Amino acid sequence: MRAYNTEIISVGTELLLGHITNTDARDISEMLSRIGINVKYQTVVGDNPERLHACVEIAKTRADIIITTGGLGPTCDDLTKQILAEAFSLKLVRNEDEVRGLYDYIRNGRNFTPNNLMQAMLPEGCTVFHNLWGTAPGCAFKAEGKIVLMMPGPPVECVPMFREYGIPYLRSLSEEEIVSHSVRIFGIGESAVDDMFADEMNRMVNPTMAPYAKECDCLLQVTAKAHSESEAEAMMAPVIEHVKERLGSFVYGTDVECLEEAVFPLLKEKNMTFATAESCTGGEIAKRFTDIPGASSVFLGGAVVYTNEAKARLLGLDPEMIECKGAVSREVACDLAEHVRELTGADIGIGVTGLAGPDGDGVHEVGTVYVAMAVKNRTYLRSLNLGPKRTRSFIRRMSGNHAFDMMRRWLTGIEVEAIP
Amino acid sequence: MRAYNTEIISVGTELLLGHITNTDARDISEMLSRIGINVKYQTVVGDNPERLHACVEIAKTRADIIITTGGLGPTCDDLTKQILAEAFSLKLVRNEDEVRGLYDYIRNGRNFTPNNLMQAMLPEGCTVFHNLWGTAPGCAFKAEGKIVLMMPGPPVECVPMFREYGIPYLRSLSEEEIVSHSVRIFGIGESAVDDMFADEMNRMVNPTMAPYAKECDCLLQVTAKAHSESEAEAMMAPVIEHVKERLGSFVYGTDVECLEEAVFPLLKEKNMTFATAESCTGGEIAKRFTDIPGASSVFLGGAVVYTNEAKARLLGLDPEMIECKGAVSREVACDLAEHVRELTGADIGIGVTGLAGPDGDGVHEVGTVYVAMAVKNRTYLRSLNLGPKRTRSFIRRMSGNHAFDMMRRWLTGIEVEAIP
Repeated sequence: MRAYNTEIISVGTELLLGHITNTDARDISEMLSRIGINVKYQTVVGDNPERLHACVEIAKTRADIIITTGGLGPTCDDLTKQILAEAFSLKLVRNEDEVRGLYDYIRNGRNFTPNNLMQAMLPEGCTVFHNLWGTAPGCAFKAEGKIVLMMPGPPVECVPMFREYGIPYLRSLSEEEIVSHSVRIFGIGESAVDDMFADEMNRMVNPTMAPYAKECDCLLQVTAKAHSESEAEAMMAPVIEHVKERLGSFVYGTDVECLEEAVFPLLKEKNMTFATAESCTGGEIAKRFTDIPGASSVFLGGAVVYTNEAKARLLGLDPEMIECKGAVSREVACDLAEHVRELTGADIGIGVTGLAGPDGDGVHEVGTVYVAMAVKNRTYLRSLNLGPKRTRSFIRRMSGNHAFDMMRRWLTGIEVEAIP
Repeated sequence: MRAYNTEIISVGTELLLGHITNTDARDISEMLSRIGINVKYQTVVGDNPERLHACVEIAKTRADIIITTGGLGPTCDDLTKQILAEAFSLKLVRNEDEVRGLYDYIRNGRNFTPNNLMQAMLPEGCTVFHNLWGTAPGCAFKAEGKIVLMMPGPPVECVPMFREYGIPYLRSLSEEEIVSHSVRIFGIGESAVDDMFADEMNRMVNPTMAPYAKECDCLLQVTAKAHSESEAEAMMAPVIEHVKERLGSFVYGTDVECLEEAVFPLLKEKNMTFATAESCTGGEIAKRFTDIPGASSVFLGGAVVYTNEAKARLLGLDPEMIECKGAVSREVACDLAEHVRELTGADIGIGVTGLAGPDGDGVHEVGTVYVAMAVKNRTYLRSLNLGPKRTRSFIRRMSGNHAFDMMRRWLTGIEVEAIP
């Protein structure tokens, strides 16, 4: 595939007011990087015809692929299709399939105005992306040597629609297949990974490899170009194998998004359950795990026990022991894990106590966290010093990652307690 | 103040790869909108000198204020200062205060390379923004009739730095003060609010007023321009009063970010505590509340009880009752609230059960949620139908909002159960 330079133009005054975050641009960029298409620019512009037109003209000078998000709806603000059609001298024509779709939508009891029909007006000759997640269709066309895709703005429509229609459409433009995998790593940082593989990465041409930092972990992205997907996969397989071998147990998965996503299938496979007792993480671990649909099949429940009284009353911890050892202690972490395991009958109990800050307790440094995992006949513990300079949100998230990492390691039979 | 058109240029290849989200642009935009400065464009470009230079040249044609984020660090990728200085024909000069600051930083045991000194090279004549949250200083200068601000990329540095230095710097440019407040609303949607105030808003010149939708609530932003802050405040006071009067109990606060932030001071003021028993929200409510520093003073703890066994074992619910009424039922919601209140000794117990989807239980529609609040001698309940088309994340978040809204209403002595 030749190198297609891409610009994403996100249309919406609410983005410019900071009322919403441009997650569409991030998600589209990430999907494109996986198929080797380079996003060179992301632009945000308001619902203003002149300024949008000017942005499209700039994009035509510097990009081969132009992807818009937003402005496809039924209100008078929504003018992306009109402006893009105009910029490429195309007419908007009424698409009868989409008109029928809209009428079906009304029959389901939604309000309908003549404006809704505007949504069925699409650039002549375009490929229509029917919107299964909302009403406004997206589309794609080629004109003046450029490839243009228009996607709706709401992330719940834009992201699945781009995945289902946008990516296959762009893939089909090329003789070459570009395939990419990300090896997810927890326990060592991006710069250490970079050091480890720097020489190799510099020598690599196809496949290529690059490390990236995420908030509380990192990844190595491996990308190959070939005449077919299977050929690209075959080229990458030994590289991924080699990377996994060198990184060993730091690798928690390939093409997964987070540690909890790696833990979920391991629990299902082994038919095991877990439960949580959280102090400083305050429900972070339970909340993150239950973000996964179907989590209830392996997650029995948990307790959020901020106060010593709650630790005693909800989980039956000994108030004198807490008093004696302190709420932030190894002993309390272990007791939390063991008690919640016993109480719920889970195979694994997780206990977390520590200081997420910003205020300290006068004894421990902010960022001191104990994470315990109780299983049959044994309780494992990690003592963390996540550092006083970190935010409350980082300390909570990182503590959660350690809990999931301990589960992952125990479920796959590797060393649990070591922290690099 | 004349209308300053602003462009934010965020520099960083990781943004273009979708590895990170451009929250800096959102946060800066939001802060600027509060002081009446309009962001007209947000641009993202990679760590590439030619492309960044070209973006700056475009910004010079369409913006009065150019704000960059990112690319101020010590690595060879970091070239924002060089490019901006070049684009405005300024020299970079070594700032001795910043050099001393960097040396202090080393003494605290951090690694230091000659490259670090590059951070102390700043455009001649600029105003230096010393970075209290990291090492790379930011700066501001005026040249060629433009105002340029450069901020570091990491959000933990960029956001506080822009608040502390960027906003006051921009405010000082004008004789006029622009002040803004947001009235936060839960229970009626943005379009209903728009309908209610449309005529008034169209007639208003100064102050102005505009409604905005957030994910699970909405707001009315009121903005005034005057010669002093107090004058602006005086102009807005009757407008805000009027809005609050018309919207009544739907208003949950002014200049707060979310319902839990409104609930926290009410609990503190009344010296009351609460506890949670969550099924379908899976820790969402506990997690969100404990995101607030100091939450432990009013939040005793909670239970996440996904399975019927956990409901029985952790909170002592009657398994036969659950069997008979079903886990998704008013009765279970009320029992959860009452039991967790009793167990923890809290003043308020919250219980939530429902279906967050995507899978149903064969009985209820996805989006069916019961939220109960137990207080002394009474238990309140809301039955929600959040709709089968909504995402798991929306249903969970909205359920949490209802729980916080019920607490807010009860704590301020207004009708609790009604759902508009």
